[in-house]
Amino acid sequence: MTVDNTGRELVLTRLLDAPRDKLFKCWTDPELIKQWFTPAPWSTLHAETDPRTGGSSYIVMADPDGNEYPNRGVYLEVVENEKIVFTDAFTQAWQPSDKPFFTGIITFEDDGGKTRYTARARHWTLEDKENHEKMGFHEGWGKCAEQLEALAKSL
Amino acid sequence: MTVDNTGRELVLTRLLDAPRDKLFKCWTDPELIKQWFTPAPWSTLHAETDPRTGGSSYIVMADPDGNEYPNRGVYLEVVENEKIVFTDAFTQAWQPSDKPFFTGIITFEDDGGKTRYTARARHWTLEDKENHEKMGFHEGWGKCAEQLEALAKSL
Repeated sequence: MTVDNTGRELVLTRLLDAPRDKLFKCWTDPELIKQWFTPAPWSTLHAETDPRTGGSSYIVMADPDGNEYPNRGVYLEVVENEKIVFTDAFTQAWQPSDKPFFTGIITFEDDGGKTRYTARARHWTLEDKENHEKMGFHEGWGKCAEQLEALAKSL
Repeated sequence: MTVDNTGRELVLTRLLDAPRDKLFKCWTDPELIKQWFTPAPWSTLHAETDPRTGGSSYIVMADPDGNEYPNRGVYLEVVENEKIVFTDAFTQAWQPSDKPFFTGIITFEDDGGKTRYTARARHWTLEDKENHEKMGFHEGWGKCAEQLEALAKSL
């Protein structure tokens, strides 16, 4: 894992009580994504995934008032049960998006019978990183990690 | 190949009198890159490549006065003798760069004993595409295509 030296990274890490393969499945199966991907009372209305290098993702989130937020992205690197790297810098392979906001790096590591879950968000600008933080990155991704853990445990 | 529908693409295509595998080698072998990659009287002082998904590239170009222009990038997709996709949006896997400028898509197709060579440059902004064009994209990449053809024929 390349260490960030730009100051444009946000990191969330949790020790989750669920095995790596089930967490990976929650991250890649569209039907499961809809059950944990947005911090309640937000919701995930729709999810499409193609978890391999160059594969597309399309996720539509909704706020409590029903306003929809569609997100297109591309997977850059996927190692089953270990690592998922994706970005909104492309809408599909390889079409630059209107606004590259961040690249997400998700890793799953065995840790004493549980899983060390780490989610990194690396941004192209410091302003975007700061905005992401103000939008509630730590609270939102933290709540999602709890939802993810609960779902993975139930599988 | 996804068709561009953003208006932010520049395309150069040529029928080159050299086989695909030699053109691919010229695009990926550092010692060969130094011989054709910049339109004379510019030069390529240094080249490092790792042509696979997530591999890094580092190329230093120089203008006729000796001013150096280092370029770091990452390969997004490489199909031997067929296709090379790279971008300056990352400096390495997966570190966003300070300025995503373009993604290059290079394809080599058999065409009547020659090779249809197509180089696409897809940008994140219309301004960057226009600047790239004003910097002499068509002339520069055209001259490089001639240098590439001459070198590949000589191998």
